[in-house]
Amino acid sequence: MPLWTLYHPENAFSDDDKQAIAVRITSIYRDLPAFYVGVVFEAVRKTSFYVGGEPVEDFVRISVDHIARQITDDAVKEAFLGAIGKLLAPYIASRGLRWELHIDETPFSLWTIQGLRPPVPGTRAGEKWREDNRPSAY
Amino acid sequence: MPLWTLYHPENAFSDDDKQAIAVRITSIYRDLPAFYVGVVFEAVRKTSFYVGGEPVEDFVRISVDHIARQITDDAVKEAFLGAIGKLLAPYIASRGLRWELHIDETPFSLWTIQGLRPPVPGTRAGEKWREDNRPSAY
Amino acid sequence: MPLWTLYHPENAFSDDDKQAIAVRITSIYRDLPAFYVGVVFEAVRKTSFYVGGEPVEDFVRISVDHIARQITDDAVKEAFLGAIGKLLAPYIASRGLRWELHIDETPFSLWTIQGLRPPVPGTRAGEKWREDNRPSAY
Repeated sequence: MPLWTLYHPENAFSDDDKQAIAVRITSIYRDLPAFYVGVVFEAVRKTSFYVGGEPVEDFVRISVDHIARQITDDAVKEAFLGAIGKLLAPYIASRGLRWELHIDETPFSLWTIQGLRPPVPGTRAGEKWREDNRPSAY
Repeated sequence: MPLWTLYHPENAFSDDDKQAIAVRITSIYRDLPAFYVGVVFEAVRKTSFYVGGEPVEDFVRISVDHIARQITDDAVKEAFLGAIGKLLAPYIASRGLRWELHIDETPFSLWTIQGLRPPVPGTRAGEKWREDNRPSAY
Repeated sequence: MPLWTLYHPENAFSDDDKQAIAVRITSIYRDLPAFYVGVVFEAVRKTSFYVGGEPVEDFVRISVDHIARQITDDAVKEAFLGAIGKLLAPYIASRGLRWELHIDETPFSLWTIQGLRPPVPGTRAGEKWREDNRPSAY
């Protein structure tokens, strides 16, 4: 976690674009171990992708799962959403693609990596995972 | 939002079916701007789709994300779920396809369209978005 | 519900593997009717699958939706997550695949099967659905 799923038109992004977008998304979470950040691109054909009942081939729909209550302050949410918009702009808005994003929040207690419960951020184990950029028993 | 994802057997729906289903889904949300309603169809091969441990090719699994607390009253939920069943029946139940649907609720405060936080429904900006059927700064 | 989505590298699993995994996942929920358990496999190409900004072809990302508040006790959560790890190990960890899993919790009241609201577990109707392994009006 976070897990980002991007539904996008076929041919909207090159492989290089996709990696660049994934790197940018990962950079938003500077406090987290980089390996926490998962990004899945799903190309959707026009005949399988609808907005307002119309088939679309100029739309990117982003669905994100976050750990619950990591962002509580409303000003921080605003800044966070603004930062996402800026980072993605060169690949989406600036290319004339429309887009929508929503973030869901899911329980910290029902999450594992390699079968391990991730340590609480800021603890010694949490720091070790971040520095090593991989999970380890603790 | 709402965002509907329909996992369905290959060849269950024609392109015309898919658009008709998307139009029907959109019609359920008459109080929302039509462009809020996203629908993604994902064809899943029998060898990648299991119910009760058995591969299925007669099953439609629908997963929906809604804004949290838009439906609070239990009678309204019941009516809403019933309306969905009726609207989808000609394409799913009447064709002998089994189906299951669940709706998740996600935070209003972590949602953007074109980088804008959607206005609260019923406000002047909310009405403008609905009448224009597109987002605008407010 | 539960609904499991497994994003996995192409060629990570044979069709037999996928069925075996689905059977094992279903077996975790021995108190539920087997037909409640849905599993969708989504093969993701390396160029569409990123962890920490790097393309991956050795990673399985599992996203699960559960009915809210089915697991409340922390020791039970721990045991449940541990059981998942053991059941999946022969197909994932033992093959050198890395993996991450998270479970979201969604409202019981916004869930239907064949258009019916599933009965509360433990009620007579709930038992009937489990014994018949199919839904029926009640």
